[in-house]
Amino acid sequence: MQRVRLKLGKRSYQIIVGSGILKSLGKRILRLDIGRDAYIITNSFLKKRFGRDLERWLSACGIKSKFKTVPDSERSKSIAQASGAITGLAGFDLARRVFIIAFGGGVIGDLAGFVASVYKRGIPYLQVPTTLLAQVDSSIGGKTGVDLRQGKNLIGAFYQPRLVLSDVSILSTLDIRQVRAGLAEVVKYAAIKDKVLFFYLENNYKDILSCRKDALEYVVGRCSRIKAEIVAGDEREEKGLRTILNFGHTIGHAIEAASSYRGYNHGEAIALGMLCAVRLGVILGLTAQGLEQRVASLLKKIGLPCRIKGLSLERIIAAHYRDKKFIGKKNKFVLVANIGRAKIVEDIPLETIKRSIKEVISPA
Amino acid sequence: MQRVRLKLGKRSYQIIVGSGILKSLGKRILRLDIGRDAYIITNSFLKKRFGRDLERWLSACGIKSKFKTVPDSERSKSIAQASGAITGLAGFDLARRVFIIAFGGGVIGDLAGFVASVYKRGIPYLQVPTTLLAQVDSSIGGKTGVDLRQGKNLIGAFYQPRLVLSDVSILSTLDIRQVRAGLAEVVKYAAIKDKVLFFYLENNYKDILSCRKDALEYVVGRCSRIKAEIVAGDEREEKGLRTILNFGHTIGHAIEAASSYRGYNHGEAIALGMLCAVRLGVILGLTAQGLEQRVASLLKKIGLPCRIKGLSLERIIAAHYRDKKFIGKKNKFVLVANIGRAKIVEDIPLETIKRSIKEVISPA
Repeated sequence: MQRVRLKLGKRSYQIIVGSGILKSLGKRILRLDIGRDAYIITNSFLKKRFGRDLERWLSACGIKSKFKTVPDSERSKSIAQASGAITGLAGFDLARRVFIIAFGGGVIGDLAGFVASVYKRGIPYLQVPTTLLAQVDSSIGGKTGVDLRQGKNLIGAFYQPRLVLSDVSILSTLDIRQVRAGLAEVVKYAAIKDKVLFFYLENNYKDILSCRKDALEYVVGRCSRIKAEIVAGDEREEKGLRTILNFGHTIGHAIEAASSYRGYNHGEAIALGMLCAVRLGVILGLTAQGLEQRVASLLKKIGLPCRIKGLSLERIIAAHYRDKKFIGKKNKFVLVANIGRAKIVEDIPLETIKRSIKEVISPA
Repeated sequence: MQRVRLKLGKRSYQIIVGSGILKSLGKRILRLDIGRDAYIITNSFLKKRFGRDLERWLSACGIKSKFKTVPDSERSKSIAQASGAITGLAGFDLARRVFIIAFGGGVIGDLAGFVASVYKRGIPYLQVPTTLLAQVDSSIGGKTGVDLRQGKNLIGAFYQPRLVLSDVSILSTLDIRQVRAGLAEVVKYAAIKDKVLFFYLENNYKDILSCRKDALEYVVGRCSRIKAEIVAGDEREEKGLRTILNFGHTIGHAIEAASSYRGYNHGEAIALGMLCAVRLGVILGLTAQGLEQRVASLLKKIGLPCRIKGLSLERIIAAHYRDKKFIGKKNKFVLVANIGRAKIVEDIPLETIKRSIKEVISPA
């Protein structure tokens, strides 16, 4: 088991990573002294698979549970779902000391965190992420939100959980495509911050893909530590530190949006976005030789796409301009100089960006 | 003109009180460096009365305005209205640096502040309160929120404005009942914290009721200073300091709820709530002799109710138990020992509370 402390003064919390630790959730909740009424936001698959056990384990600690299931898709990140959850919560909240458990992937974490941030001007919540993507990334750092028709995460808050509990044994319920998608974010951490992790991935990717628990625990723990450090230094994304987490995300989000969130999932789009960013670094002469080959080769081994298919350059560029990182139409890219060394570059000419994307698009 | 600084570290801001100062809003916004796109949430009366001038004054500073009107009733504090405002905001937010002006009473301030708190995880907003109640109380301190069927302000955030601008000349648009309601909160501040203000009210209530600008500026400035001090010491209502602002509000809210938010307005219910709290203090032997008479006499001069009419004790008590201040069914009352000296008392026997209310109910 690994423990990481995210240091944010009064808002500090622990991230606990281990295998089979879900059953310890109740006693950890009691230590936090946040009450004994748990409103668990999850999906119907997880409720069916783990609901009865979870309820029993919590009940053994004197904690009452109420489940709220939401559909497991980006569409659940809506004002309508948030309202529904809040209404259910208000109905359950009789003893006046309720807290929320976000038990699911990134969508559920973002939605549940948002609900916790606004209900009664903020109640405690816990992240219990069940996908690799959520364990290494979205459950940590307090970014919560729901989507508007006009864009993703347009409504939300920075609101920190009281605990993140990542039980890697749950990851074996994922299908292989979801594990691969999560690994895209792991590659991101390694590329921007952690050479040792990059080597580890090159040598142990098979263990991770087959969900070996020690490998998963190592990887999730390592990524949690990186994310916690970065968030501790720049909680509200004001100082630019947190920006490096966007490696692969600027063009990645454009690819995701251009495929209308259907063709490529988030991790796959990020993999392609990282390849574009690496290409951009090579074109600009900022990225070390050989790095592009290593990143591409690792992504390929993992089974992530290395070529953009079925999307034109025009469509990606059009989506790209709606990205909220383009404040006042200025752009900001995270590139990597070498494995583990990120570099932020601003105002790259559009033609250069286009060229990098073009060179990652599959020839028709 | 009076300036009060609410000290909250990085989130500090100024409260400016004066007559005819609305026209200075544009230049103050420029100093804040929060962009030049103002999304103004208001009601149709205020838009009609001040909209064109406001737009012109802002435009002279290079600030573009977009108005969003909402109905002027508690029902506007809904998720539906918040969603509507957010959607309109997203449509207006093209240059990516938008801020909100809450131009109205408490309902508009609470709604607009909430919208600002959740849009893109928080954008700047300004409070430009137009009722006495909002100028002395709700515009200061960052409590924002909307209502649920299950209760008032169940959804919200602590989110501070960047500036509060109280132009007392706008108060002459209010009808006398609204001025009286605002004065109930002024009496509250005087009773819990400011003997001098209490004397002033006893001697100058007529000037305030006839909206004499110097009297209004004095009173609004004085209350703003008290509220700012209390909020600075207890931003999120965690330390108990902010609790004293609830003087008259525990039973007051119950009276408001029992009359289904129709019979008595907020200020009138608070006046009655203060009388019950004073009565309670007398019964408990905590309140100085003569104080009850002075409070009742001042409220009467102002034209506020001094007897509860048309509501039974049973109905008030039933509503009272839904008040969110009753954590775990424990009660907490703010009493006054003497003018300007508040005292918090916990766990008062229900029978004693009932007796105090009963003695303020009009004999049938």
